[in-house]
Amino acid sequence: MGVNKTLRGHKLLMIMPWDQPDEFIEKIKAEFPGLQVVAYRQQEWDQTWAPFPDEEWKDVTVLLTFTVLPTPEQAPKLEYVQLMSAGANHVLDLPIFKDTDTSFSTANGVHGPQISEWIIGTYLAFQHRFPQYHEKQKEGRWDRSDLNLIDDAVQKTIGILGYGSIGRQTAQGHLVDTPGLGDPDGIYPSKWFSGSSTADLHAFLASGLDILVIATPLTPSTEHLLSAAEFELLAADGRKGRTFVSNIARGPVVSTPDIIHALKAGLIRGAALDVTDPEPLPDGHGLWNTENVIITPHVSGASTRYNERVLSILEYNLERLSEDRELVNKVNKKEGY
Amino acid sequence: MGVNKTLRGHKLLMIMPWDQPDEFIEKIKAEFPGLQVVAYRQQEWDQTWAPFPDEEWKDVTVLLTFTVLPTPEQAPKLEYVQLMSAGANHVLDLPIFKDTDTSFSTANGVHGPQISEWIIGTYLAFQHRFPQYHEKQKEGRWDRSDLNLIDDAVQKTIGILGYGSIGRQTAQGHLVDTPGLGDPDGIYPSKWFSGSSTADLHAFLASGLDILVIATPLTPSTEHLLSAAEFELLAADGRKGRTFVSNIARGPVVSTPDIIHALKAGLIRGAALDVTDPEPLPDGHGLWNTENVIITPHVSGASTRYNERVLSILEYNLERLSEDRELVNKVNKKEGY
Repeated sequence: MGVNKTLRGHKLLMIMPWDQPDEFIEKIKAEFPGLQVVAYRQQEWDQTWAPFPDEEWKDVTVLLTFTVLPTPEQAPKLEYVQLMSAGANHVLDLPIFKDTDTSFSTANGVHGPQISEWIIGTYLAFQHRFPQYHEKQKEGRWDRSDLNLIDDAVQKTIGILGYGSIGRQTAQGHLVDTPGLGDPDGIYPSKWFSGSSTADLHAFLASGLDILVIATPLTPSTEHLLSAAEFELLAADGRKGRTFVSNIARGPVVSTPDIIHALKAGLIRGAALDVTDPEPLPDGHGLWNTENVIITPHVSGASTRYNERVLSILEYNLERLSEDRELVNKVNKKEGY
Repeated sequence: MGVNKTLRGHKLLMIMPWDQPDEFIEKIKAEFPGLQVVAYRQQEWDQTWAPFPDEEWKDVTVLLTFTVLPTPEQAPKLEYVQLMSAGANHVLDLPIFKDTDTSFSTANGVHGPQISEWIIGTYLAFQHRFPQYHEKQKEGRWDRSDLNLIDDAVQKTIGILGYGSIGRQTAQGHLVDTPGLGDPDGIYPSKWFSGSSTADLHAFLASGLDILVIATPLTPSTEHLLSAAEFELLAADGRKGRTFVSNIARGPVVSTPDIIHALKAGLIRGAALDVTDPEPLPDGHGLWNTENVIITPHVSGASTRYNERVLSILEYNLERLSEDRELVNKVNKKEGY
């Protein structure tokens, strides 16, 4: 495509669940005077229909979106899609991804801070029995009878499963590289699983983990990565009830019936699940009221500052596009993340 | 008293809400062959009656206790009391404290890890709306409608009020000195209040705090330290709804009607209260269901490892006693902490 400093001839289409970011648009228009910018607000999370006439797609070269995507025929000039999600699994089967040269970049990097807060926060909540105290607070009742059951997180061993996408960001950016989170209390990664064989996985699970963070991308090879055999392994050799499982990746990485069984049988200490399978978890599903589980509706990556962080990736990639350089966070079309 | 390496002639009386720590007792008996040790289990938290005949007090020289304390007449030989609590305010008015030379030491230092976890945990729970998601989980309902309201803790400013007792430990041991908790997300103390005048306090409160941790000991000069004027100040100059107040000290440091008003009027962002005034907070008290408050029943210092941490202070002080050296964590009888 060549160097095109002003992005002349380019059209950026933004579809966001937030109000139009006027300040940002002004800024990039000043930076790239040739760039045309149109912005739309989507009505629902997970919306896949375009909130504008088909005509609008025709000359789009850059698209910022969560889940609204065109067919190759609708947007023949599309060069680069900036996804607002960290995962790309929802686009892998779409012709615009599979059958074109359009580049896709994820929002990898904007989730790290809030997701590591979610992981640490849910674990501390579990250890310090915040859900139980919330119940007592609602009943207006001062009850210290379970004082002897409060555990803390001192000297716990955390294991992080998954080096892709969010996993890499969460782990390296926030639990290891930077001074920190958890360190004063001895929470920090001490085991790493990077092999891809079942034997590697099992060696990791048998290594004595107090917290197992699941942060692997969802691909055919990670589907149901944690099933009955893996929960048995976490509980083997005197480790019954030791491991707290935290899933911030994708629901299908864990077998739902098998984690319900592991919780009920006390194979694991508890779980914090921000993602489920099926998702959304149907009203009244048995997982909701299984003991020792904290469920949130896929919100661990949410932050009031999410938008500004995504936009700074978009801006960075527009600069690279204008310089004819490789985009950051580019999805490998073969690997799917 | 002189050096007495074997603690010959000494009698240690232990009153604990846990089973007798056989291993510990064996260990100190080996270390101090002259020491007699008797241990009793108390029946209730906050129990003040002795679970043994009066006779048992007579020759006690060292006492390990939470709240069971003798009169000077009952225990004329008492030299050193190791309290299992971080605060000493419950003994300040007792003749055995006021009218004798008996040394009192607190358990200052055993609470730091779990209390800093409680502080960070309740703040993350509040920011990430865990109580609200807990409600939805109980209803078995997947609801992401408040996704835009989730804030994270990145780059927040924390202020710690109180350099005594737990405050010092929590702050210096766990939020500042050690690599740490909150640092990856920019949570770390940035303001320190050490002056004792109202002007000093007010300058601190007006400095722009996202989190205000109250960790001052309860003394006549800190009672109701946070009252209407202080909440107004936290909210002045555009700071309305900014500060999250976390009290892990003692309830009366904060005026209860005034914090209820501050929460209802939105002067502060929210609060996490592990201590209340009155305490226990009566069933159905208006504070229980005030919005944006997390209440736990004075449990932030609890940990399944509390006991072993207290016993290591006792052991350390027995060593110092045997060497005729000053005890650690000694309560200043004039200051009351």
